[in-house]
This record gives sequence, C-alpha cells and structure tokens, in this order.
Amino acid sequence: MKEDILYHFDLGTNTHDFPTLFGDVKFVCVGGSPWRMKAFAQYITGELKLGDPKEDIANICAGTDRYAMYKVGPVLAISHGMGIPSISIMLHELIKLLYHSKCTDVTVIRIGTSGGIGMDPGSVVITSQSVNPCFKPEFEQIVLGKTVIRSTELDSALAQELVQCSQEINEFNTVIGRTMCTLDFYEEEEKMQYLKSAYEAGIRNIEMESSVFAAMCNISGLRAAVVCVTLLNRLDGDQISSSHDVLVEYQQRPQKLVGYFIKKRLSQV
Amino acid sequence: MKEDILYHFDLGTNTHDFPTLFGDVKFVCVGGSPWRMKAFAQYITGELKLGDPKEDIANICAGTDRYAMYKVGPVLAISHGMGIPSISIMLHELIKLLYHSKCTDVTVIRIGTSGGIGMDPGSVVITSQSVNPCFKPEFEQIVLGKTVIRSTELDSALAQELVQCSQEINEFNTVIGRTMCTLDFYEEEEKMQYLKSAYEAGIRNIEMESSVFAAMCNISGLRAAVVCVTLLNRLDGDQISSSHDVLVEYQQRPQKLVGYFIKKRLSQV
Repeated sequence: MKEDILYHFDLGTNTHDFPTLFGDVKFVCVGGSPWRMKAFAQYITGELKLGDPKEDIANICAGTDRYAMYKVGPVLAISHGMGIPSISIMLHELIKLLYHSKCTDVTVIRIGTSGGIGMDPGSVVITSQSVNPCFKPEFEQIVLGKTVIRSTELDSALAQELVQCSQEINEFNTVIGRTMCTLDFYEEEEKMQYLKSAYEAGIRNIEMESSVFAAMCNISGLRAAVVCVTLLNRLDGDQISSSHDVLVEYQQRPQKLVGYFIKKRLSQV
Repeated sequence: MKEDILYHFDLGTNTHDFPTLFGDVKFVCVGGSPWRMKAFAQYITGELKLGDPKEDIANICAGTDRYAMYKVGPVLAISHGMGIPSISIMLHELIKLLYHSKCTDVTVIRIGTSGGIGMDPGSVVITSQSVNPCFKPEFEQIVLGKTVIRSTELDSALAQELVQCSQEINEFNTVIGRTMCTLDFYEEEEKMQYLKSAYEAGIRNIEMESSVFAAMCNISGLRAAVVCVTLLNRLDGDQISSSHDVLVEYQQRPQKLVGYFIKKRLSQV
C-alpha cells in the first residue's frame, strides 16, 4: 500500500511520521466523550508530572470532528462516540495506527459510564466478559452478508490488577462483573423482570461499546480492559437522579483508577 | 411523568419551555458531523434570509458534547454521530422533543455522506428503502432479548419531490435507489463480487444510519427522507481519491438540495 489514510483521525502515513509521533505509546485509554478524554489527558499530565494539568492540550485529530485524540508521554487518550459502529471505526484506525507506529506491549482500556444493575450508583465495574442482550459472551458481526461470531472475553489478569489498584486507592467500590452491551439506550416494557434475570446471570452494568471493543482487541492481540462507573442502579428505575456535581465526581472514578494503574505500572519498569 | 430529561441533548421539560423553543419546527435535518450541521444551519440562515450566514450560530446543546443542535426559523439541524446506536439515541430524544413541543407536520431528512456503488463520485442518492447487508429492507432490533423486525421503507412522494428539486437545481446527478446500512465501516475479502450483487439488487450507496432512521420515523409517523452524496465508487476500490476541495463541494450537495426543497416548500405555504 502506497499510503494508508486514517480518514476519521485525519492522519496519513505520507503526511505523518507514525513511529516518531506514537512509537512510545504503551497505554491507550478510550471513552465516549471528547471532553472527558481531554480531561483525562490533562489529569494524566499532572499524575505523571509531565506538565501543568490545567494547561490546554492539543487535539491530534483537530482536522476532523469525528474523534478527539490526546497524547501524554506513553498514554494516548481517544474519544470514540456512542455505540458499536462508532467505536469500531475508531478501533480499526487505532489498530492501524499502532501497527504503523511499531508500538509494542500496549494495554488498551475503555473508561466509560454505564447503567448499573444491583450496584450502588458510583460503583465501578471492571468487565470480565461482555455479553449480548441474550446474556451470551459473543459479538456477532455481519461480514459481507455472512455472520461471524467472536469472543468477548477480557484479560482477567489485567482486571485483577485493576481491582487491586482500586483497593489501594480505597475511595469507591469496584467489582469485577459481566457487562451487557446493547444497541439501544432506551428500552421498553417488561424491564424489571429482564434486569433481575440479568443480575442473576452475573451482569453488573450495561453500556454500548464493550462487545466490539473486546472482540477487536482479542483479534489484534491487545491486552484490554473495560472500566465503567455506574451512574444509576437500573433496578431502582431509569432516571439519573444524582446531582450534576455528584455525577461529575462519579465520572472521574474510572479516570482515577486507570491513572493510578498507569503510574503503578510505569514505576515498576 | 414529572419531568422528562433529554439527557444527551442536555434539555429537560422543567428547565426548558419546549413549545416556545421548538413549537414552530417543520423541518428537521440530521447528519453525522456537528461541524457540517452547523454549516448547514448557517447556509439555511442565508437561504431563508433570516440573517447573515457568516455569523456564528448558537449550539442549543452546548451543555453536552454528545450532539450539536441549531435552530433557524422552522428548521432544526442536529448532528447524530456515526452508526445506528448513536443516531438512535438522538432520534429517541428528538421524537420526545417534537412531542413535548407539540410540533405538527414535521419532515425529517438525513443529509449525509456515503460510499457509492456504480455511481460517479459526487452523485446524490435519495433512499427508496434501506436494506441490511443481506439486502433485506428490514431493521432488526433486540428489545429486552427478543428480536423485533421493523420496516425501513421511506416516503416515496417525498423522495420524488426531492428528485424534482435536484432537476430544478440542475448541478449534479441525483437518483433514487436502495441504500445499504452496515454496522461496519471497513470490510474484508470477497468485496467486489459482493458489491456487484448489491448493485444488481438496486443498491446505489452504503452508509451506517439509514435503517434505524427509517424504522424510527415510520413508527413515529414522521415523513422522512435520506439524501446522501457518494464520496467514491466502491466498485473502483475503497480509497477516497478526490481532493479535499472536491470532497467539501460534494458534501455541500445534500445541503443545497435540501435547502432548495425547504425554500420551495415554504414558498408554497
């Protein structure tokens, strides 16, 4: 291939020197919201003592409004929008970016928000495996009209390491559990009975990206984790009742946990 | 319900007077990119002589980074991100917004970009029906673990009206055709044979939102159309080879077409 254009990042192998720009990346953190990923990059800047966390930080994908990308030392932070298609376009280009940059030993972590099932709001769930709305740990992809089924297991050693970090921080409740990945945000009737059976199946939270995230990281041999805070307990209804400030603090928990994890990992090198 | 919070728009029935803010909306135009929807809102401002099209325009959803929303007279322009889940969250909140605002006689048009099949780049495709990767005009939804199949037909009179507008503008090629809606942007092997059989099945372009857009508008009784420009002919490969300036002009074609349509409709009132 003469040139590989990562269209949705507005980056290309002829216009950007990937190994120089990204060759030292060891941690990729992804999340739905561009604002939150910028805040995470600024937080990591302070945690890793690489600059002033209050200073503005340049968006590497400034030429497009599809995704936002920030780099702080060995940490790359990228937004992925909402839902499986949006994150899968981003992951496809991310995997090419890591390949062209000759990155090695990369850990990819999704830090996000979710609806909890039987969890106090603000609890953090680290995903053991992502399950579909039929509670199966599968991601079904239609490739050129044919169905392909992929595994959605996540790295259990990495999940354990993250739980250990949470215990050391000792500020909020963190559990390992199954995560249900849906195509819809809003659901209809029969809800309570369905959610109860999900809880019984070991499902602790619901979000919209983990299945394809797990499947694509598996295929690419990337060590991966999903760390989501629960904004509400769906067994108590579907309105988010916490105040704005409380929600803001909740959303910082996965960032704090993963920031601690990265610092710990880097100090062990 | 005491209060309905449209979480991803950062709007709520207790904090915003929906009928006053949105009651006069007759046209809702949606597209993936927030930048493009802002440009469309500014373009419409000039076309409807409601102000200076070069002036900045306020984002109604400025409190969130999920979607961007602009209002110009009877026209609402909203971004929807990429893929079915992202547009479905937006449409769900849009339908509630129109309901709370007591809007009547609303036309919803998706203006977007797509890959063409057997079409010269820059051609505009108005969707007759959205089909899945098996070429069926169906949208399959999993509601609480059960599969529900919905129709993805679009309003044929509206499609005809839009083609008529394109003939009157007489600047670019516009056809009515089937649109394939995929979950993935990047695809693999066997491509050419598959794309040729898609062409034979009357499919003229590929994008990632039309199925749920058609299905949800149908359920809600909203008159709807999908108007997408094709950025490349997939039968000639999958790299976008046109220059930046040419692509910018292509992306303005659906805006121009729908702008003309809206002006014509309003002049007939």
